[in-house]
Amino acid sequence: MASSDQNAPPLRRRGARMRSAVLAATVDVLTEHGLGGTTVGAVARAAGVHETSVYRRWGTRENLILEALTEQLDAALPVPDTGHVHDDLTAYFGTLARLLATAQGEALLRLSVERDDSLPDRRLPYWTERLERGAVMVRRGVERGELAPDTDPGLVIEAISGALFTRALISGAPLDEDFAARLVALALTGALPRASTGP
Amino acid sequence: MASSDQNAPPLRRRGARMRSAVLAATVDVLTEHGLGGTTVGAVARAAGVHETSVYRRWGTRENLILEALTEQLDAALPVPDTGHVHDDLTAYFGTLARLLATAQGEALLRLSVERDDSLPDRRLPYWTERLERGAVMVRRGVERGELAPDTDPGLVIEAISGALFTRALISGAPLDEDFAARLVALALTGALPRASTGP
Repeated sequence: MASSDQNAPPLRRRGARMRSAVLAATVDVLTEHGLGGTTVGAVARAAGVHETSVYRRWGTRENLILEALTEQLDAALPVPDTGHVHDDLTAYFGTLARLLATAQGEALLRLSVERDDSLPDRRLPYWTERLERGAVMVRRGVERGELAPDTDPGLVIEAISGALFTRALISGAPLDEDFAARLVALALTGALPRASTGP
Repeated sequence: MASSDQNAPPLRRRGARMRSAVLAATVDVLTEHGLGGTTVGAVARAAGVHETSVYRRWGTRENLILEALTEQLDAALPVPDTGHVHDDLTAYFGTLARLLATAQGEALLRLSVERDDSLPDRRLPYWTERLERGAVMVRRGVERGELAPDTDPGLVIEAISGALFTRALISGAPLDEDFAARLVALALTGALPRASTGP
């Protein structure tokens, strides 16, 4: 991003700089005032830009917040590649569990649940893309022969992440790395008795 | 409920009848007008009772809706006992997937996500109780030796139901019995290669 930025024409460079400033201001305002207090006006003031510029680029408050949080979450949640699917998944979902327990993680989830019927529903493409990021780790495990060849990578990711999202959003039960690790172990090993202890 | 009802003193019987009428009216109003249109006033009118009686018994609109939907959901989601954990879980979560795809199922989930900071958070006890209903099936499987003795019953239920809730609430991806069955299979068997195909 930084290098393509330097080669961009001045106008585009200003646009990219404005974008970063507004997204950073959005995260600041969210952190301080929560989802309810994050208005386009408050973000524009914090970023030192005109409110109309924000509306022109993002259209709605929801789009702005979703983009700001997504960019932050993706940066905070790298996809590991240790060569072992168990270690990759444990590290990835341990980080996700910690992130979801923060105010910003919860804001991202709540925003994904809110719906505005006057707007196109952007949730499915957004979550499909996030799911695909995680599925890469499982696919590598299948290719290395660590997992059964008929493993459904998306299903593994949904089973683990769904339980984390549900604790964050619905039940309010504690979210920590240990819970994430136990979910990974279940998705890999299953609840059936292991061969040596089988019936 | 019906038999204890008949032995109750007249006043209590009237109370139980009022309760059923109000809960049934709540489900009717929800079905017709959605979550936003389900006010205490609308429910009281539909049930033919005074609005104050509803507030006296349930305190808030949220409590009323949560109780009405819970009672309906629990009745629509019996816990099977076929003697086989795989069949029990597949039937149970297949039904849950279908229910979550209905307007009422989605309303229950959305209500569980809404929070009112001025009220005690009733979500954790509510979801803990629902989780325990499902965990009974897994526990029976452990007792029959179908599942590994160190299986965590709640974890199995959270992994399967969490993915269903996430599709209903967050991603908007399709919810059907086939998806539920694949989640059950993953939670039981795991993604590691089966003994005969192991590395």
